Amino acid sequence: MKVSHYQEVPQQPVEMEGSRGCSVRWLLGERDGTPNFAMRQFEVAPGGYTPRHFHPYEHEVFVLEGEGVVYEGDKSHSLKAGDVVLVRPDEIHQFRNTGQAPLKFLCLIPNSAAGKTATVAPECGCE
Amino acid sequence: MKVSHYQEVPQQPVEMEGSRGCSVRWLLGERDGTPNFAMRQFEVAPGGYTPRHFHPYEHEVFVLEGEGVVYEGDKSHSLKAGDVVLVRPDEIHQFRNTGQAPLKFLCLIPNSAAGKTATVAPECGCE
Repeated sequence: MKVSHYQEVPQQPVEMEGSRGCSVRWLLGERDGTPNFAMRQFEVAPGGYTPRHFHPYEHEVFVLEGEGVVYEGDKSHSLKAGDVVLVRPDEIHQFRNTGQAPLKFLCLIPNSAAGKTATVAPECGCE
Repeated sequence: MKVSHYQEVPQQPVEMEGSRGCSVRWLLGERDGTPNFAMRQFEVAPGGYTPRHFHPYEHEVFVLEGEGVVYEGDKSHSLKAGDVVLVRPDEIHQFRNTGQAPLKFLCLIPNSAAGKTATVAPECGCE
């Protein structure tokens, strides 16, 4: 068993192309011996966003604090604390903070995501 | 993509041997097309507890609200909002609410847990 508080876990900047103001904590992952999936916690600063991209694995997301939107392609869904999002494999998606405080959420991925490529999607749907 | 609020998801009583005052919401699972793992949300009433048991799959837990303890065999760890727990396969574990308000947490399991057996563990370590 491993027990910790999420704020004890070091926070790292997200330095992916197309992201702004994002940081991540790997709360549970393969280094902890997770057999199947990893739990990460993201913080997106006001005005910040995750990359608009897609990849061949899913996200399971739980919003902890803040306000924002998640884009499903060009369609947006508003987000608040307690919202749950399933991003299916190969769906174009992006999370954006539209509030005044950090947007905090959990985002879980399968261990099998390791080494798989995320593809940046164009900003408009016209390509 | 699926977006919902956790409180929109129907809550079901947990009717496992050895549990008391527990309910569960299946926030994301195989019925939603999750490829690898399921997200559930548990609520344990004051004085309530989950079964003291073990099973051949892991839990990844994030505490949302309330106060409690998680038992690792006979050893207890206190829990509060923001705490993260990895219960490894075959570890004896039990969650107990020690506060005055509901203890709420997320508990994720692999899809491969379906059909696997949980074994109730004795209350003392003397057997």
